[in-house]
Amino acid sequence: MNQEQLQELLKSVKKGEISIEEASAKIKHIPYEDLGFAKVDHHRGLRRGFSEVIYCAGKTVEQVSSIFQSLASKGNNVLATRATEDMYIEVKKNYPDAKYYPVPRMIALYQGKQKQVGSILVICAGTSDLPVAEEAAITAEVMGNKVERLYDVGVAGLHRLLLNIKLMEKARVLVVVAGMEGALSSVVGGLVEKPVVAVPTSVGYGANFNGLAALLTMLNSCSPGITVVNIDNGFGAGYAASLINKLGEIKE
Amino acid sequence: MNQEQLQELLKSVKKGEISIEEASAKIKHIPYEDLGFAKVDHHRGLRRGFSEVIYCAGKTVEQVSSIFQSLASKGNNVLATRATEDMYIEVKKNYPDAKYYPVPRMIALYQGKQKQVGSILVICAGTSDLPVAEEAAITAEVMGNKVERLYDVGVAGLHRLLLNIKLMEKARVLVVVAGMEGALSSVVGGLVEKPVVAVPTSVGYGANFNGLAALLTMLNSCSPGITVVNIDNGFGAGYAASLINKLGEIKE
Amino acid sequence: MNQEQLQELLKSVKKGEISIEEASAKIKHIPYEDLGFAKVDHHRGLRRGFSEVIYCAGKTVEQVSSIFQSLASKGNNVLATRATEDMYIEVKKNYPDAKYYPVPRMIALYQGKQKQVGSILVICAGTSDLPVAEEAAITAEVMGNKVERLYDVGVAGLHRLLLNIKLMEKARVLVVVAGMEGALSSVVGGLVEKPVVAVPTSVGYGANFNGLAALLTMLNSCSPGITVVNIDNGFGAGYAASLINKLGEIKE
Amino acid sequence: MNQEQLQELLKSVKKGEISIEEASAKIKHIPYEDLGFAKVDHHRGLRRGFSEVIYCAGKTVEQVSSIFQSLASKGNNVLATRATEDMYIEVKKNYPDAKYYPVPRMIALYQGKQKQVGSILVICAGTSDLPVAEEAAITAEVMGNKVERLYDVGVAGLHRLLLNIKLMEKARVLVVVAGMEGALSSVVGGLVEKPVVAVPTSVGYGANFNGLAALLTMLNSCSPGITVVNIDNGFGAGYAASLINKLGEIKE
Amino acid sequence: MNQEQLQELLKSVKKGEISIEEASAKIKHIPYEDLGFAKVDHHRGLRRGFSEVIYCAGKTVEQVSSIFQSLASKGNNVLATRATEDMYIEVKKNYPDAKYYPVPRMIALYQGKQKQVGSILVICAGTSDLPVAEEAAITAEVMGNKVERLYDVGVAGLHRLLLNIKLMEKARVLVVVAGMEGALSSVVGGLVEKPVVAVPTSVGYGANFNGLAALLTMLNSCSPGITVVNIDNGFGAGYAASLINKLGEIKE
Amino acid sequence: MNQEQLQELLKSVKKGEISIEEASAKIKHIPYEDLGFAKVDHHRGLRRGFSEVIYCAGKTVEQVSSIFQSLASKGNNVLATRATEDMYIEVKKNYPDAKYYPVPRMIALYQGKQKQVGSILVICAGTSDLPVAEEAAITAEVMGNKVERLYDVGVAGLHRLLLNIKLMEKARVLVVVAGMEGALSSVVGGLVEKPVVAVPTSVGYGANFNGLAALLTMLNSCSPGITVVNIDNGFGAGYAASLINKLGEIKE
Amino acid sequence: MNQEQLQELLKSVKKGEISIEEASAKIKHIPYEDLGFAKVDHHRGLRRGFSEVIYCAGKTVEQVSSIFQSLASKGNNVLATRATEDMYIEVKKNYPDAKYYPVPRMIALYQGKQKQVGSILVICAGTSDLPVAEEAAITAEVMGNKVERLYDVGVAGLHRLLLNIKLMEKARVLVVVAGMEGALSSVVGGLVEKPVVAVPTSVGYGANFNGLAALLTMLNSCSPGITVVNIDNGFGAGYAASLINKLGEIKE
Amino acid sequence: MNQEQLQELLKSVKKGEISIEEASAKIKHIPYEDLGFAKVDHHRGLRRGFSEVIYCAGKTVEQVSSIFQSLASKGNNVLATRATEDMYIEVKKNYPDAKYYPVPRMIALYQGKQKQVGSILVICAGTSDLPVAEEAAITAEVMGNKVERLYDVGVAGLHRLLLNIKLMEKARVLVVVAGMEGALSSVVGGLVEKPVVAVPTSVGYGANFNGLAALLTMLNSCSPGITVVNIDNGFGAGYAASLINKLGEIKE
Repeated sequence: MNQEQLQELLKSVKKGEISIEEASAKIKHIPYEDLGFAKVDHHRGLRRGFSEVIYCAGKTVEQVSSIFQSLASKGNNVLATRATEDMYIEVKKNYPDAKYYPVPRMIALYQGKQKQVGSILVICAGTSDLPVAEEAAITAEVMGNKVERLYDVGVAGLHRLLLNIKLMEKARVLVVVAGMEGALSSVVGGLVEKPVVAVPTSVGYGANFNGLAALLTMLNSCSPGITVVNIDNGFGAGYAASLINKLGEIKE
Repeated sequence: MNQEQLQELLKSVKKGEISIEEASAKIKHIPYEDLGFAKVDHHRGLRRGFSEVIYCAGKTVEQVSSIFQSLASKGNNVLATRATEDMYIEVKKNYPDAKYYPVPRMIALYQGKQKQVGSILVICAGTSDLPVAEEAAITAEVMGNKVERLYDVGVAGLHRLLLNIKLMEKARVLVVVAGMEGALSSVVGGLVEKPVVAVPTSVGYGANFNGLAALLTMLNSCSPGITVVNIDNGFGAGYAASLINKLGEIKE
Repeated sequence: MNQEQLQELLKSVKKGEISIEEASAKIKHIPYEDLGFAKVDHHRGLRRGFSEVIYCAGKTVEQVSSIFQSLASKGNNVLATRATEDMYIEVKKNYPDAKYYPVPRMIALYQGKQKQVGSILVICAGTSDLPVAEEAAITAEVMGNKVERLYDVGVAGLHRLLLNIKLMEKARVLVVVAGMEGALSSVVGGLVEKPVVAVPTSVGYGANFNGLAALLTMLNSCSPGITVVNIDNGFGAGYAASLINKLGEIKE
Repeated sequence: MNQEQLQELLKSVKKGEISIEEASAKIKHIPYEDLGFAKVDHHRGLRRGFSEVIYCAGKTVEQVSSIFQSLASKGNNVLATRATEDMYIEVKKNYPDAKYYPVPRMIALYQGKQKQVGSILVICAGTSDLPVAEEAAITAEVMGNKVERLYDVGVAGLHRLLLNIKLMEKARVLVVVAGMEGALSSVVGGLVEKPVVAVPTSVGYGANFNGLAALLTMLNSCSPGITVVNIDNGFGAGYAASLINKLGEIKE
Repeated sequence: MNQEQLQELLKSVKKGEISIEEASAKIKHIPYEDLGFAKVDHHRGLRRGFSEVIYCAGKTVEQVSSIFQSLASKGNNVLATRATEDMYIEVKKNYPDAKYYPVPRMIALYQGKQKQVGSILVICAGTSDLPVAEEAAITAEVMGNKVERLYDVGVAGLHRLLLNIKLMEKARVLVVVAGMEGALSSVVGGLVEKPVVAVPTSVGYGANFNGLAALLTMLNSCSPGITVVNIDNGFGAGYAASLINKLGEIKE
Repeated sequence: MNQEQLQELLKSVKKGEISIEEASAKIKHIPYEDLGFAKVDHHRGLRRGFSEVIYCAGKTVEQVSSIFQSLASKGNNVLATRATEDMYIEVKKNYPDAKYYPVPRMIALYQGKQKQVGSILVICAGTSDLPVAEEAAITAEVMGNKVERLYDVGVAGLHRLLLNIKLMEKARVLVVVAGMEGALSSVVGGLVEKPVVAVPTSVGYGANFNGLAALLTMLNSCSPGITVVNIDNGFGAGYAASLINKLGEIKE
Repeated sequence: MNQEQLQELLKSVKKGEISIEEASAKIKHIPYEDLGFAKVDHHRGLRRGFSEVIYCAGKTVEQVSSIFQSLASKGNNVLATRATEDMYIEVKKNYPDAKYYPVPRMIALYQGKQKQVGSILVICAGTSDLPVAEEAAITAEVMGNKVERLYDVGVAGLHRLLLNIKLMEKARVLVVVAGMEGALSSVVGGLVEKPVVAVPTSVGYGANFNGLAALLTMLNSCSPGITVVNIDNGFGAGYAASLINKLGEIKE
Repeated sequence: MNQEQLQELLKSVKKGEISIEEASAKIKHIPYEDLGFAKVDHHRGLRRGFSEVIYCAGKTVEQVSSIFQSLASKGNNVLATRATEDMYIEVKKNYPDAKYYPVPRMIALYQGKQKQVGSILVICAGTSDLPVAEEAAITAEVMGNKVERLYDVGVAGLHRLLLNIKLMEKARVLVVVAGMEGALSSVVGGLVEKPVVAVPTSVGYGANFNGLAALLTMLNSCSPGITVVNIDNGFGAGYAASLINKLGEIKE
């Protein structure tokens, strides 16, 4: 029930077309979405440029294709994560412009023109961290952010990182992706005064315990200003970095 | 060695006042801070409005007082965390304007005028989470942010939270502090499209395992856009939120 | 040895047909089931409407089929969990009315008429939690409960849940199934004053640690009235919910 | 805004005393509690016989006393958990009828007459589990349940338990409290066909890991129908058992 | 109801002094202890030479003293573990022959003559493991076993252990007590072909995690024939070793 | 080389019957086993009736076959654990009398006559625990023990266990194998006064954590006299039980 | 920019061929590697005899082959770890002298003459630990160390180890590789006064928790002088042992 | 007893200079140390300059004092770790030259002249890591090593570390002490080509889990050449570093 419908109802009350008891009951059962959050939801769609992301793990090729179609039909950008190539082939039949990114296993459809704003710098420690780093980068790009990449700059060869301080200082937000011991986020956090979103990866073996080591490292970082997302959660990092980066655009 | 000093050296080379070998050696041993990070460091001080924070745990009253004096002498705001009242009494002798916040156990000294910008909303689930929430809030205030508070709105009584959606939508960044099962961050993250910094607290008992339960909850949140700091790390959350909030101020 | 058999024995003693020593020995070796638990066991069968459930994991197709036949021959409802389609094909040869539920991978045979009493509401957070939710729902249905379903109402989109408060209030017991951070149980527990059986699922990745995150969340819930079963244990939740729901039927 | 107030507003609309726009605005900002949960909240108070429980840990004597007064003034039963004797002495000044239970460290005030319904059986394994068992028992009693106790019946001396099967069969719900290895809940769950709420305690040492051993035992029980609450959470168990027991009273 | 009482009952049935229904009811309610386990219990007391052990942790001085008296009155040996000196002073008032062992904090009362049979060798790695080792040794002595001690023979100085192989070969059972990394049990298990009961202690720091390291070492021992008890559970080890040692005495 | 042999050697030196170099070499090469452990080794072979067990996991079919041959050639019983059927087929070519046990995946060769002494009772909770239980049983049989089996007597149906108390009392040692929550060992330990070797299995799911739940249960058992081996370590339990059982045979 | 290039630049300044501003800018942006670490990097290559190691896991056959070629072209020894035979076949096409070690799955190319210095002794507990032990041994050999091997000397048969004390005393550094309970490192550490690098392996089952047991054992060793690397990290151990062993060669 | 000594003994036997019984006894009582390990032991004393270290935790003031006296009487350096000031006061009565180090809580007595060789660099991240760093440094000094210190160079301010690369390159071995996330060891390991002994400390809070975070970081370091000791084990690190450093002194 939207604003107009409510006013119509009140008019009917005024005109005596509907009894007070009936009106009272109707109002009492207004779905909550008409009173606040629903509008928020609406705003979301407008601001983000896309409605929802498809997490493909555990879904069939047909399910992914049909959800993709439903989302794409609204004219927004569409993003599918953890997608197989089979899924892409199916999606492509309806949306030949959809792109497949094999490293982070994502499908993306760009619709309409889009300004790429601000900049997010995605840094990763080693080449094995690339799938997660790219998941973050592509997510941010689809959400309308300008993204730079600085890959393979693990702390075992510190000079590779130090040579790129300029790049780090230029970005509004940094996403740092690292497995093994995950020390890169602490070093980056100590070099720049920017929000750093750290993503531990499950890359490593033995006492890495599937990413636990990197996760604890990042949570305990001695450099303040670092916040952390779940292990291997490149999507979450790209999403959070986008929300942060967009703050630089708001005119208040 | 700063820009001017380097130019002086080069002039001496040009004039033949110093041999090429000597100049080469001098340049080669320029401390790293003169070539990049040092300046960054300098920028930091300017932008942040304060140089460093004193983590008082494990320090003596005298040590805290003397570090405080050293930092305060530069005219910046000074912040001391995990401070006892004894430390405050000692600090106050030199800085009668210093304030003590008993709940988060912090000492703060505000120097000069300071614009409080943007706004950060600090939300907490229960009254036992207050020390951590206030640590975040005070940290952000000392760093020059406008801070709003929304306390005791745990998910067991959801309407308390829902009645305050407006407040949530008004803020640029949200800090969500919760112990026990830490579900509040997921709910808040689902209601607003803003960066959310989640802080698990060690409040709870039994299988809470000193904050582990809330930490895992927040890392696994089904609402994207949430990033997490260490258990009970109110300071880290306030610091990160400040970095994010300040992005809304930058003119590019 | 049942009540009648015992009385026959005592009659023989009285008539002198059996010596006191013989009778004494016989009574002393009465299996325990005749003196207490056995009757309980008997009661169980009557009350539950089925004797035992077949946990198919680790059993061969033939074993499942033969146990199924043995249980079904007593005229009760029969339930097989974690069953493959192959097992179903074999079972169906003897019991063409048996149904297969592919999502929770269960085989069920309904025999005789059955009143579906009370109502249990099974709520789940996301579509990936469906197998566990359906395992709970089908278990409860086979045990003679009326079951309602409210699926895909995770806390990231809270309004979906809030729009269905009526449904929640109508049920006698609620089963809440959630993976990732498992926050749904706390929110539901805060909205209704009914027993809530929470089921953590292993859905999620990274620091979810195969359901540990959701398990800890549910155990630490700030909403009282929530009890928890093992990770992915839909059967256990449906069984417990049935025991609780049936209390509403007892005339004392 | 309650039902009457809403009807008054609609009447004003009908009479033209208030414009449609004004009424529309007023309705749109009705606090959520008036549209659903608030009433639930109200219902809760009526049904439960008491509004809220005071968790005293981390609160001052004065805070406890003043919250107690505020809750007691509404005429309900009041319960305070994890309370010290000092808190009781303070509370008693205003409410001389308040009782203190030193073993579970609880304060309870019974106001008005109260029917004790159904029955809940609280079973515990050893004498060291008593504080948790009593927390469950007293909680249930204050909430209006008839409570029986069966203590010190750990599985190391199984006959003590078996001699009391009648008692177990008589109860509607069973609360089983056990530390160390927590095996008692599995045995009880195998003997009766009733809902069992299991409470692991932190009693034990070494590889008990503060209750983790008992918690895992209870979650993995081979007897279905058992649900589990947090370690040492006697209050939660009593609360959940009460919700379950009360189902036996509902006339539908 | 014992054998005689049952025969009396049956006689009454025969004589018609009691109706079949009455007899039937009586038999049906025979407490379980009369049908098997109770007798086992009786046997236990006879064989063990003492009825029950008092675990003093969490008991008052008065409680310990009164339980001690109750057990001692039956003429058996009595053992109290984790006892304070205060408890001993109280116990001694009634039983001046009771001894206090301050290292393992135990009280023991030896009554009547007792043959010390077989032999159990208690080995420990370092002097910090002594309290646990002595708890095992005293327990075994009170239960009627001959006990030898071989202390401070940790694997860091292997020759100390090797010089005592004879002693190890002479024993029927070995109890190996070790903290830190707990490697001693593997070495001992490799040297002798006897049952080895291993006791991890919480001695150590850091990644010892309160005895977890030693516990895992002992469970994973590459020497077969080693079984393990809980961390710091000297009593349990002494008890198990006694049960094993006594097998050497049985004439079958 | 014993005392006498050493003196003989020295006499030969004195008499010049052997050169100093020869004597020196003999003494120097007294393998360490001649100074203590070696004799133990020799005794072992005699007492155990077999030299070493082949752990087949990670070995090739050829390796297993050739080690088997080497051990069998000494006339002892031979045992191979975690063996595939392929390995058996290869072994059988040389030893047609070798038997294969598919459930515990073991190959055994019995050579010469063997007295089966004492008795070990292997108890298991559920049918899924059979592989581990049979590994324990076969190991004990090959080592010359009489073995009884009591399977599928989990605590969820306690009467099945209680009906077999006689069987339990008859055995010298009991091996209790249980997965899920592992409560069976506590119950058995409470019923009999015999050494109990408990084996946790990895049977179960969710918060069973691959046998951790059962392991902790068994370590924390409230029944004394229980010792524990590694998860799924049927071989270790059978071996330890054999060492214990054989004590009943020693004439001292 | 190397030493010569810097001097050229300064000469140009002197000659006025380049302005002071230009020179200043160039110097300020000298990559860090020219001011310190780069030379370190250079030194490394010279000292180690090879530049970088290829970790093949997660790389394609083509990637491995092309990186191998790039490294080999500089004339150094090249090492590839966790390499499949397919990778070797591809590498061999260009470098027919490359060797494949199937047990540790490594490819090595020796180029030029190389002095094998000092000696490193690699000890392992069981044959299943061989892949990790060989990874350590080959790594050390490729890095120019003399390597001895002492395999299958687990503590269950201690004499095998004791017979080889000479070998242990001869080495400069010892690498001890052990799975299961990992006790070997403590025993070795107690026998020799040399640096011991301990490598836990994931060999074992049950409560070994994929190498955690051995890892904790080694970290908690009661023998000082032991340091530990990650689970299964043979490469890391060989690398560290090489750095240590080479210290014996330095002329200062 | 070496080869020559043994031959001399046998010659004496031949010549009749010593009776067979005497010779037999000498040979038989060659303590195991005479066959290998003993010599090691002897060498140890000579090389180390002190026999054994006193771990004071859990010892009384008197015990410490008397062990100290016993060790000091042999003229070696003596070291006591985790010592209280009370212990020092007692020790000082007999050894006025003994020194107390309050930060690492150690007592050290230097006897005779001692050459301080090589150099070990102890680096620590923050001032809270000082007690552990000093424990390592003092241990190394007492063992005869030259020790340099580089403190408070955590990675949050990387330039502090980079400015000291010279110092790092000068040392033979580096001990890196760090709490919180422990990233310092990875960075140091990447900068120098020297053996690095990493010591995690329990400094930190929340998800640091008493040093677990730093421990995992160090074990998973992406820089090879790093080995790790137990949490807070400064003594172990100093001891291992000394063994490594001394290799640089050996003339072979």
